[in-house]
Amino acid sequence: MVEIIAFDGDDTLWHNETLFSVTQEKFRDLLRPYVTEADIDASLYATEIRNLALFGYGIKGFTLSMIETAIEVSGGRVTASEIQTLIDHGKAMLDHPVELLDGVAEIVDSLRQVYRIMVITKGDLFDQESKIARSGLADLFWKIEIVSEKDDATYRRILRTHDIAPETFLMVGNSVKSDILPVLEIGGRAVHIPYHVTWQHEHTDPLAAAANSYRTLDSIVELPPLLRDLTDAA
Amino acid sequence: MVEIIAFDGDDTLWHNETLFSVTQEKFRDLLRPYVTEADIDASLYATEIRNLALFGYGIKGFTLSMIETAIEVSGGRVTASEIQTLIDHGKAMLDHPVELLDGVAEIVDSLRQVYRIMVITKGDLFDQESKIARSGLADLFWKIEIVSEKDDATYRRILRTHDIAPETFLMVGNSVKSDILPVLEIGGRAVHIPYHVTWQHEHTDPLAAAANSYRTLDSIVELPPLLRDLTDAA
Repeated sequence: MVEIIAFDGDDTLWHNETLFSVTQEKFRDLLRPYVTEADIDASLYATEIRNLALFGYGIKGFTLSMIETAIEVSGGRVTASEIQTLIDHGKAMLDHPVELLDGVAEIVDSLRQVYRIMVITKGDLFDQESKIARSGLADLFWKIEIVSEKDDATYRRILRTHDIAPETFLMVGNSVKSDILPVLEIGGRAVHIPYHVTWQHEHTDPLAAAANSYRTLDSIVELPPLLRDLTDAA
Repeated sequence: MVEIIAFDGDDTLWHNETLFSVTQEKFRDLLRPYVTEADIDASLYATEIRNLALFGYGIKGFTLSMIETAIEVSGGRVTASEIQTLIDHGKAMLDHPVELLDGVAEIVDSLRQVYRIMVITKGDLFDQESKIARSGLADLFWKIEIVSEKDDATYRRILRTHDIAPETFLMVGNSVKSDILPVLEIGGRAVHIPYHVTWQHEHTDPLAAAANSYRTLDSIVELPPLLRDLTDAA
């Protein structure tokens, strides 16, 4: 029986990846005078992955990686004022209003009548706390966990801290790699709600995904009926 | 009776502020060709404080603030390669070996025979986790809490989460503002161990500090005798 439902934050409760996409488009526009052929996106992604071990996930690291990529692909010709523009893009991302996905506020509010509701989200502590506060949802959550990586060990630690039996735990998220596979691995349940954009780094080997069993929904509004089915089947 | 001892991380368990000081010296050197009169330190501090609400604490935000200050005080003349140097300084800070303060490893190891030992540290989640892992101390801690701000509300939440009675809780740290006053406020005890450098933002009104009662030690090695005194007095 499911007792605890944990939601991922970015691209599950609120829009996030679209903000990165829009910024990345501005980044391409800014660099176009310097680069004719080079694949700007590929260079940025390579910089991000190279810096991941030092920066972790989040907007500040992304902004530093944009600056580094701009210097690199422009051969050092990018101007100070253009670099300030990149910092301003990063600040605008941090300051951007939190836009909930359709149905989120109503569904989370109704589910908490029956279940304990958590958020388990990955990224910059400060930025994620700020987004949770601005989401207007903070009071609906039993527990909030902000983590630097979502792997088996992280989920095990969270369940132990809050005394949660894996078989009572259901994770809902948009990333098969971060929200689904590690939860199945530790004996929990998971529901996948894909977002229309996924950062390349979160892409998963489809075979690995297919080998496991989890449900995929189009939207959070399909979650309550699924939970009723699970309860009836139990 | 004290049952739980929580240590601050930066400048209590391991050196931190010296790393910022050394980097700030390199920052001054880099900008000297551009600025004759302006107070580079004051400009950097003003940028940091202005950005704090968006960036929070930590090295990535500090690096972005260095870049912004460099652009500003050089009137946009700072070069892309100099900005890359600033990013490299930030990366070097993130990658810097964790250097424990004298006596820390032995004292923490001996105290955990009698007390439950926690870390409560402020800053970038990813960077702080990495420092705890590299400190070699991780296995000594009962609980690890990485927070974005150390105020009354934060300490209350942590004590509630871990079912800790305030009167059994002792916080040890170098910042009167973050480690001492809010803990006294919620009914816990606190021991101040000053570090030889304190970031301007952590300076406290001396009157506010004097109005409260807490002990100040020169070094962590004085902590076990103080705890014995407290136990004898109880």
